[in-house]
Amino acid sequence: MTASVEPENGRIAETELSVYCEQIAQQAKVASRQLTSLEGQRIDDWLRKSASQLEEQVDRICEANRTDIARSGELGLSDAQVDRLRLDPQRVSGIADGMRNIANLDSPVGEIFESSLRPNGLLVNKVRVPLGVIFFIYESRPNVTADAAAIAIKSRNAIILRGGKEAASSSQAVVEILQESARTFAIPENAIQLVATADRDAVDHFLCLNQYIDLTIPRGGEALIRRVSEQATMPVIKHFSGNCHVYVDQFADPGKAMDIVINSKCHRLGVCNAAESLLVHQQVAPQLLPDLLKRLGEQGIRILGDEEVCRLDSRAEPASEEDFRAEFLDAILSVAVVPSVQAAIDHINRYGSGHTDCIVSENTLAISQFTRQVDSAAVMVNASTRFNDGGEFGLGAEIGISTDKFHARGPCGLKELTTYKFICVGQGQTR
Amino acid sequence: MTASVEPENGRIAETELSVYCEQIAQQAKVASRQLTSLEGQRIDDWLRKSASQLEEQVDRICEANRTDIARSGELGLSDAQVDRLRLDPQRVSGIADGMRNIANLDSPVGEIFESSLRPNGLLVNKVRVPLGVIFFIYESRPNVTADAAAIAIKSRNAIILRGGKEAASSSQAVVEILQESARTFAIPENAIQLVATADRDAVDHFLCLNQYIDLTIPRGGEALIRRVSEQATMPVIKHFSGNCHVYVDQFADPGKAMDIVINSKCHRLGVCNAAESLLVHQQVAPQLLPDLLKRLGEQGIRILGDEEVCRLDSRAEPASEEDFRAEFLDAILSVAVVPSVQAAIDHINRYGSGHTDCIVSENTLAISQFTRQVDSAAVMVNASTRFNDGGEFGLGAEIGISTDKFHARGPCGLKELTTYKFICVGQGQTR
Repeated sequence: MTASVEPENGRIAETELSVYCEQIAQQAKVASRQLTSLEGQRIDDWLRKSASQLEEQVDRICEANRTDIARSGELGLSDAQVDRLRLDPQRVSGIADGMRNIANLDSPVGEIFESSLRPNGLLVNKVRVPLGVIFFIYESRPNVTADAAAIAIKSRNAIILRGGKEAASSSQAVVEILQESARTFAIPENAIQLVATADRDAVDHFLCLNQYIDLTIPRGGEALIRRVSEQATMPVIKHFSGNCHVYVDQFADPGKAMDIVINSKCHRLGVCNAAESLLVHQQVAPQLLPDLLKRLGEQGIRILGDEEVCRLDSRAEPASEEDFRAEFLDAILSVAVVPSVQAAIDHINRYGSGHTDCIVSENTLAISQFTRQVDSAAVMVNASTRFNDGGEFGLGAEIGISTDKFHARGPCGLKELTTYKFICVGQGQTR
Repeated sequence: MTASVEPENGRIAETELSVYCEQIAQQAKVASRQLTSLEGQRIDDWLRKSASQLEEQVDRICEANRTDIARSGELGLSDAQVDRLRLDPQRVSGIADGMRNIANLDSPVGEIFESSLRPNGLLVNKVRVPLGVIFFIYESRPNVTADAAAIAIKSRNAIILRGGKEAASSSQAVVEILQESARTFAIPENAIQLVATADRDAVDHFLCLNQYIDLTIPRGGEALIRRVSEQATMPVIKHFSGNCHVYVDQFADPGKAMDIVINSKCHRLGVCNAAESLLVHQQVAPQLLPDLLKRLGEQGIRILGDEEVCRLDSRAEPASEEDFRAEFLDAILSVAVVPSVQAAIDHINRYGSGHTDCIVSENTLAISQFTRQVDSAAVMVNASTRFNDGGEFGLGAEIGISTDKFHARGPCGLKELTTYKFICVGQGQTR
């Protein structure tokens, strides 16, 4: 059930909009308190029931999806965007399977992860608890709606979903089905609320409501994430750019270097954990670079190199300072020759974005220096940057990848949506 | 060594101030990177050496302190404030002992606290690492200078110290001694820098420098903390008010209830973990309240009660809604009678500040309901609220108590000044 102020044509008068947003946020807070007392079994039952309901009501979902597809022309969506938006029975089954997977995960909530019995007999437990209310802003893929709701409720947080308007009808249908099945398990429906207005000002209103909302997660372009981070009065888990590096050390195994560079750069070009920059130790650059650049060239990768790279290989065009800062998300790679592992580390800490950086080396000293000093969410040793991913790390479910250092870093799963409290059990102790 | 722009009379021209602040922050960042590669033993040796140096150079410290004391009149300090500012050989030894204690603690840095071997042979380690650079704004007690520096360096963070101007000379002397002993261990001096200007604008400059500073911790009045939180472009660990509750349940042991209420309220009036509000279950209020209020009255506590409390005991004056929200930090207690444990929980989540709340009860159901649903940093069961403290919890050292839920909650020790990174070790894996 959404708030009682109902939008007309997706628009709400400004005066009513703030009331509408506050009501949603307040309802989410109440629901989040109720979630703390539910048995975990009931949440897993709800997830499984929701999964089968999504499959049973596939026609209802696909009909709503056709409404979105029909509107996609006037919204100016590209063919690729329309394809990502489109749902069919197979894709709906995929969404349902995702919910079943989340049901099968262990819940982090309630875990006592530190405990000490003090000399006075007081037992001090550090217990994992939900954050409370999550405001989630995301792109227009309807599968994300179900996924985010499942992750939030499994970690016992209420969620306010602000999806892209392109998928409004599809997301509405999905949320209604999840809420209907919540009702049958006496799970508060307001634990999952969809913002039923395309009005951009709604986001601004929510970002002021830190008395109700404990965390905002924005997914989308960098401009959106910056705007949200600046305006939010509550914590934000941010995912800025991924300017990921592969450093080929003096003591690299040439075969591994080749495989890892090619895979990190070419496996998928437009993803955040793709390599954007290659650093090669000067001792091995003359032997390794020509082969590496040839293979990259065969994959259609354009090379922007520093002076030394350009000298060693005519395929390279001169790189600017800005090129070394860039997240290309494209068939372009910046390449530099470095005099030492320390120079590679300094380059990465200067130009990188703290996302994923890799060293290819068989030398334990170089590896230990690199892993200690590179200040990134994930440091890969002799493995592709493409492995920085919740699924690959075994998190089971992921709501985003944090490039922040505070609270959560790297892939964020169930545990990253929790906090802790101290529960101290005494027998009448006083100071 | 502080930055090269030297203040005159504690004032720097506005144009130079931003250069000065940026230089300090930049130097701190460089130092923080160097700290990641130091052996822990060297840091502990530095802590112990600094402790003995503080004791050996007690005359230098006390002379600087006399300069501060001499200025305290023109700064309008109260007698109590002057007393907190004053250093003598015994107090300096106390500071030194604090540093020795921190040397004896285990360092959290480098701990692999989660690890999994993935099916493809990739070893995924979650490793605890320092946050980087901490900007610490604190009140004018010179002992805090050494304490904060020790906690920061032990957790391998660089720290920028912005102490109260009342203790400027004392803090300067302490920091110089710590830096001198850092030099002998080749620990970067810029890991500990004192902001050498009383200019308030300096704080504003630092709060913009999120490219260098990873965390700000403001200690002081609520106005300062709010201003810092609003302006900071980096994460802030906040400590807002402590409106702590004791709830005496229907199934409370009357003796424990009496001891815990008296201790929570009367042990120290002006501290954040002192009780400010008492809730009593209606079933036991007629028997327990008169005795409780009598004992509180004997301790000079003024009672502000709801209607029922005023009806039961003539000592109580009527409480307003605002009184239930207040952190008195004084000999005043708000008191209400509640119909159920759920009503107590709802009252605390509505009026409380999420700091410390206590249930006195022998009933496991009531205890479990209360500990799950009360959304506070610490929930005490049959123990005084006064135990929410880093020392009492066995943290060994504490830099503040967080009333936030994000990243750190409750007392913040060494571990709360760290984050983690994923270090993944492969043998050439690609996707």
